[in-house]
Amino acid sequence: MAYNDDKINMVHGAGGEVMQQMISEIVLSNVSKTSVNGGIGLESLDDSATIPFDDEHVVVTTIDAHTIQPLFFPGGDIGRISAAGTLNDISVMGVKPLSLSNAMVISEGFPREDLDQIMKSMDETCQEVGAAIITGDTKVIDSDKLDSMIITTAGIGIGRKDEIVRDSGLEVGDKIIITGSVGDHGMAIMSKREGFGYETELKSDVAPVWPMVEAAKKVGKITAMKDPTRGGIANALNEMANKANVGMRLYEEFIPVKPEVEAVSDMLGIDPFEVANEGKVVMGVTADTAEDVLDAIQKTKYGKDAQIIGEVTEGKRVIMETLIGGERLIEPPIADPVPRVC
Amino acid sequence: MAYNDDKINMVHGAGGEVMQQMISEIVLSNVSKTSVNGGIGLESLDDSATIPFDDEHVVVTTIDAHTIQPLFFPGGDIGRISAAGTLNDISVMGVKPLSLSNAMVISEGFPREDLDQIMKSMDETCQEVGAAIITGDTKVIDSDKLDSMIITTAGIGIGRKDEIVRDSGLEVGDKIIITGSVGDHGMAIMSKREGFGYETELKSDVAPVWPMVEAAKKVGKITAMKDPTRGGIANALNEMANKANVGMRLYEEFIPVKPEVEAVSDMLGIDPFEVANEGKVVMGVTADTAEDVLDAIQKTKYGKDAQIIGEVTEGKRVIMETLIGGERLIEPPIADPVPRVC
Repeated sequence: MAYNDDKINMVHGAGGEVMQQMISEIVLSNVSKTSVNGGIGLESLDDSATIPFDDEHVVVTTIDAHTIQPLFFPGGDIGRISAAGTLNDISVMGVKPLSLSNAMVISEGFPREDLDQIMKSMDETCQEVGAAIITGDTKVIDSDKLDSMIITTAGIGIGRKDEIVRDSGLEVGDKIIITGSVGDHGMAIMSKREGFGYETELKSDVAPVWPMVEAAKKVGKITAMKDPTRGGIANALNEMANKANVGMRLYEEFIPVKPEVEAVSDMLGIDPFEVANEGKVVMGVTADTAEDVLDAIQKTKYGKDAQIIGEVTEGKRVIMETLIGGERLIEPPIADPVPRVC
Repeated sequence: MAYNDDKINMVHGAGGEVMQQMISEIVLSNVSKTSVNGGIGLESLDDSATIPFDDEHVVVTTIDAHTIQPLFFPGGDIGRISAAGTLNDISVMGVKPLSLSNAMVISEGFPREDLDQIMKSMDETCQEVGAAIITGDTKVIDSDKLDSMIITTAGIGIGRKDEIVRDSGLEVGDKIIITGSVGDHGMAIMSKREGFGYETELKSDVAPVWPMVEAAKKVGKITAMKDPTRGGIANALNEMANKANVGMRLYEEFIPVKPEVEAVSDMLGIDPFEVANEGKVVMGVTADTAEDVLDAIQKTKYGKDAQIIGEVTEGKRVIMETLIGGERLIEPPIADPVPRVC
């Protein structure tokens, strides 16, 4: 892929491999201290960072900048996604999210009514997991400097050290569970942008995942966890496999994809495995607890379509057995096919 | 002040009274849960929020969105201000800042070299207080949607409950200390924008204030503290007085203003008391410890020009005795005269 290396390129921010490279090159090379008290820090590129506090406890924290077009889309809006995105990054560390911090940069002339609706959505999303919005910042800038708005949220959870689930803990033999259908968010945004959003039932899946994680923790042993946002499950599964130095064997027949997602995906030529989900978790679970975990997740509000989609293997590749009996290598996307999606 | 109430206006975001109104109206009215475990929450509009953790400890956290023009200015850049701004909000709660989270939204085509310089500045600023950059997010968006970049930082500190200093704790008889000269940042930005930045020695004061706060804590009793950013000391002093339901008597002769700030201020007709400082603290200190605190602050790197500028009185007004023996009422600015300053 050719691009000018002196300028920041869209490919840099898309969630694929090229962005990881830029992060390590520019950000990591300049940061002297990347963790506190031996906790999980910047170089781990995990969903959240941790600050170990005493012998037992740890503060889990994350930050996400949200720039999404359109601001209101089928199934959600920038307020819901700004809350869910950050609450979910805490949740997939195995810890209940307690608080959200909310920084908004708003273009002058932004409709007050829209801001009101966006705040309502953030609040409703927080209420689903009992999280509070405890601090914030609002800046207004000229409309020729910024189009619409950017919302950045940071979140905090406090947990016991032994509760923390990394994205790197997979072991050979673990089962891989996905908590529901794949590609809904990215495809909903794309179909809305392309103008056929009203003709389909396609909706974003944006939702807080904590209730599913909580249910799973109670009955099983989760070895690794991630929310497959930018870059989709293709990115998340490869990252988990790489970090644990293992492979995966997945079965296409068990990976839930909604018919309307399939349809839009075919029309646009975009792989639903490579686009963002905003209310899903992929987790590795010990084989002996996998069925119990699946049952528990399926009983939650957003987990009805959860499936065991494969298992962890030796090797380094994520391979999917296709419906017609072939094999397909699942690779991390170089760039997210849908920009400005979260 | 007349503006269209249906649209978000620049005045909303400037740090003055109108913004406070918007925050309470739109944000606060929509948030159901504004604090965790009885800690300091959104409705306090303090510099940071707190999450009480056990009987003894508390997590202090804040978030700030930074949009500044120009990105590089005499005395600093957006990287230094993004780090210092958030580290300082934790510091003025009386707690050492431990970590920074860094979310950047970057315009496509942004020079890689500038990003590198900005990251270096952030890091150097963190190093001054020993804070780590532990987590981050980077998004790149089309250059017609965003001009240059927005950096949002969130910070965390962990302290003992009895260390926390609110901005509302002033008591009659306390001395008011300012840790150095007033208006440097706002005036440096303005003079750079107006094109006479190179003719003066005027530099932003952007710096981490923790070393001054730490020195002050060791020898004195601080009753209230705030960093006078947007809206300047006029805003900060009034906020502290209002929250404690007290007044202040200040003495113009003791308020440090650099000659070059005075000069630019006269040229532009802007009050240096009403523009942002980015490396200063205003604090209330018990009268019996005020001289010791002043000495301790003056021995730190950024505190040489610290002064006792007045005292807390009965009443509700912030009054300044002028150089010529008159009295002037210091009121919070309706809007910051210098937009996009931090």
